[in-house]
Amino acid sequence: MFETRNIKLTLRYDGTGFHGFQRQAGHRTVQEELEKAILRVTGEKVAVVGAGRTDAGVHALGQVANFRTTSTVPVDRLPLALNVHFNREIAVYRAEEAGARFHAQRSAKRKTYSYAIWVSPYPHPLLRLYTYHQPKPLDVAAMEAAAKAFVGTRDFTSFWSAGSVKTTPVRTVYDLACRRERRDDQGGELVTFTITANGFLYRMVRNIVGFLLEVGRGQRGPDDAGRVLAAKDRQLAGRAAQARGLCLVEVAYDEPEQVFS
Amino acid sequence: MFETRNIKLTLRYDGTGFHGFQRQAGHRTVQEELEKAILRVTGEKVAVVGAGRTDAGVHALGQVANFRTTSTVPVDRLPLALNVHFNREIAVYRAEEAGARFHAQRSAKRKTYSYAIWVSPYPHPLLRLYTYHQPKPLDVAAMEAAAKAFVGTRDFTSFWSAGSVKTTPVRTVYDLACRRERRDDQGGELVTFTITANGFLYRMVRNIVGFLLEVGRGQRGPDDAGRVLAAKDRQLAGRAAQARGLCLVEVAYDEPEQVFS
Repeated sequence: MFETRNIKLTLRYDGTGFHGFQRQAGHRTVQEELEKAILRVTGEKVAVVGAGRTDAGVHALGQVANFRTTSTVPVDRLPLALNVHFNREIAVYRAEEAGARFHAQRSAKRKTYSYAIWVSPYPHPLLRLYTYHQPKPLDVAAMEAAAKAFVGTRDFTSFWSAGSVKTTPVRTVYDLACRRERRDDQGGELVTFTITANGFLYRMVRNIVGFLLEVGRGQRGPDDAGRVLAAKDRQLAGRAAQARGLCLVEVAYDEPEQVFS
Repeated sequence: MFETRNIKLTLRYDGTGFHGFQRQAGHRTVQEELEKAILRVTGEKVAVVGAGRTDAGVHALGQVANFRTTSTVPVDRLPLALNVHFNREIAVYRAEEAGARFHAQRSAKRKTYSYAIWVSPYPHPLLRLYTYHQPKPLDVAAMEAAAKAFVGTRDFTSFWSAGSVKTTPVRTVYDLACRRERRDDQGGELVTFTITANGFLYRMVRNIVGFLLEVGRGQRGPDDAGRVLAAKDRQLAGRAAQARGLCLVEVAYDEPEQVFS
């Protein structure tokens, strides 16, 4: 009998063709594709744990997953061996031996998501799968002002969509930053919000960005953010932003305590 | 009877779902989509002329096209009116009144193409439709050295694929530049070649980049470029690079002589 190893994978994917990360009967998911590839490489049926359960259409540049195996395949061979099964929609770019207790979701200390908005009267065909298209100008300064209210330890009930497992609604947002890239030759501007927290509630990022978009369009004042947070009422926060603009950028752990490579 | 106007359009598109720009029976093309949209907006069946006949899978950020119409629709309304018919795969972002003799292809003075290469052992799902994936390291310095041989007025017979209309094989390349962007967090580097010339022969950019890739992989020396150009033999130059990395970035004209907006 071989020893059981705990393998940590870091991967990126284009969420366009997937029904999210988490396995669902009758739907194509990232988890299922990972498990099928691991079966082919190791000969073992494993259960993959993902750090973030990205929704249908949401992308990842730094998703983390782990699985247990008795296979002896060297970790430095794993990415290339797995990637041949993914048709380039998924790419594992790091594999490490993790400590026995490492759990991609529960051990995560911080996650970072980005949300990209293409602001222009004209769509951008080459960005269309990875950005939300906002045809009218946005008051980005007002969005940045409103964003400040979300930084800190807050009760995010108003930005938490139904249908999720029960947990505390309190999360700590460490940073919510905005980057603007003018693309005058393309008749538009790329506006990207990046948010880092110790964890996110179901649809929390899309709900916050949906709120910020309403501020940017002048449908709300930037001061509304504090009021809506305090009310703890999902009805007040407006609609979630589209999935396509969202990307899981990074998941951070307390290395080297939990992971040794 | 209304006066005939000559309309110049500037547009971008994702070439992934198209069989190139030029109309072909039984295939989905950018020209056909443009003509269908113009028919809906103006009520007229027009023939659209494109500046560059991009191949299947080739993208555009600055394609130029023109068509003649007796419609009185104002040019500033045209982009939005056309774009509703394109499902964001095509986007017209400029429309201008052009002089009667303006012809998107024949009046063009300079065209610029870019070719993007993702260099990494691991694919990049979010770039996969817009880059060529090179899994092994490239000697980019050798590619840049080889690229110098293509700048100037040259006979490009060796880089001209069969099947094209007869023309002179002599073209003037004004610039062939290389930009490198390290993406260490993503385990790779994005290498982009940008080439500007007074015109391009059929598949000339893809044939030149295919040659440069062989230099970068060490399959040829950088000095081969001059020898292959001098031989005027397509067999010597190697294989064309994949369509997906190629993008028509800009078409330049002698404004204001030929175009007035």
